Amino acid sequence: MKKKRPKFLLNEAFRKHGDRTFLPHLSVDCVIFGFHEGHLKVLLLKWKDGPWCLPGGFIKHKESIDDAATRILKERTGLDAIFLKQFHAFGDPLREKGKRHQEGWISKRFVTIAYYALVDYSKVFPQPDSFSSECTWCDVHAVPNLIYDHKQIMKVALEALQLSLNDHPVGYNLMPLKFTMPELQRLYETILGQSLDRRNFQKRMLALDILVKLNERKTGGAHKAPFLYRFDKKKYDRAVKRGLGAGF
Amino acid sequence: MKKKRPKFLLNEAFRKHGDRTFLPHLSVDCVIFGFHEGHLKVLLLKWKDGPWCLPGGFIKHKESIDDAATRILKERTGLDAIFLKQFHAFGDPLREKGKRHQEGWISKRFVTIAYYALVDYSKVFPQPDSFSSECTWCDVHAVPNLIYDHKQIMKVALEALQLSLNDHPVGYNLMPLKFTMPELQRLYETILGQSLDRRNFQKRMLALDILVKLNERKTGGAHKAPFLYRFDKKKYDRAVKRGLGAGF
Repeated sequence: MKKKRPKFLLNEAFRKHGDRTFLPHLSVDCVIFGFHEGHLKVLLLKWKDGPWCLPGGFIKHKESIDDAATRILKERTGLDAIFLKQFHAFGDPLREKGKRHQEGWISKRFVTIAYYALVDYSKVFPQPDSFSSECTWCDVHAVPNLIYDHKQIMKVALEALQLSLNDHPVGYNLMPLKFTMPELQRLYETILGQSLDRRNFQKRMLALDILVKLNERKTGGAHKAPFLYRFDKKKYDRAVKRGLGAGF
Repeated sequence: MKKKRPKFLLNEAFRKHGDRTFLPHLSVDCVIFGFHEGHLKVLLLKWKDGPWCLPGGFIKHKESIDDAATRILKERTGLDAIFLKQFHAFGDPLREKGKRHQEGWISKRFVTIAYYALVDYSKVFPQPDSFSSECTWCDVHAVPNLIYDHKQIMKVALEALQLSLNDHPVGYNLMPLKFTMPELQRLYETILGQSLDRRNFQKRMLALDILVKLNERKTGGAHKAPFLYRFDKKKYDRAVKRGLGAGF
């Protein structure tokens, strides 16, 4: 499939008149977390001869902010059909410290609306757009210097993701179809950055009523191979929508 | 104390040139929930000869969005020193259906960044600004028609407030200094709009480790008067900041 790129993104006309196409003072940034087999990463772009940053862009005059986020992520990284969750708007007037652009609408202050997503990074294939030299996964604990307040945006996104574990299920697009409880626990531990008690975790997961225990154990020869589970997709989807109700 | 009002808010110059003072295309709306003795309300303004709406306004060019929210709430309702929590940006291009203004920056599309707060409505004294005929508390279940998507904004705010109960303590500014467990339960039930199991609620509250049980019972002559509690302010404040950690 051919990808549409906004070819004018950084040329003179864009710098001066981009606000004919896009809302002034407003941008969108995407924090894409990637999980695979116990590793948590974040997707970064590197401007040609420039700094690392989150994939971001602008909102067209007749476009919803959610649609803009989806389009921007696709244009800048090639990632498609990713469910993005809006989590915070960043609006400190000094957030874009060290901005290079000296004139035109692009030189002005931007409030950015930030979205996050969590994907299996082995299943998506990010590609840099024509303004970037790299588009790559980076370990969340080894992120290089990022432009403006993008590191802060990433930090707040991670906190939002961690908090979401209390209210929403996670894992359907990240785990194999059948998985063991320790494998699921590893996903939670990786996101939370801390180890969890095995028994409490299992008790809590089963109480959520979104798992089906299979009459089948993980093969591999171990003496006490753990049972396999799968998600009950109907219950899982309902919990995504309504929350787990694990609170009150 | 004298209140500063933006006198030009709706005059001709503002309609045409408001973007000299404020960022174009961006607004702020505040959903102020009020609780008192078992009742949950929301603060609404009524434009003179116009519809009901949430208190809202615009962001100055050199102002942070959080500061703008605080200033707007004060200017439009008189409410001061209210802790506002940003919860969502609303950016559907058709959200301002039926907009009256036909020209100038104000006629354009606005993305609104929304904040909420929960206060004791018996302790604050809202007053309408010069553009409003009323500023009043309205029962959350009997809200009249509101302008644009303000009812949807209110609904999402209430869901955010309810979800926040899972992660953050509530009640310090809403309960008397000493209170019984049933009184605290009533607060949670009012916010959640559902009744809770007495034993589970007590168990959960005590597990949060933010309450101090006093060696004192509620007076009033009942045979089995319930014990009084107070918040441990240090632990409460820490939980406000770091979350309750009641999840993982």
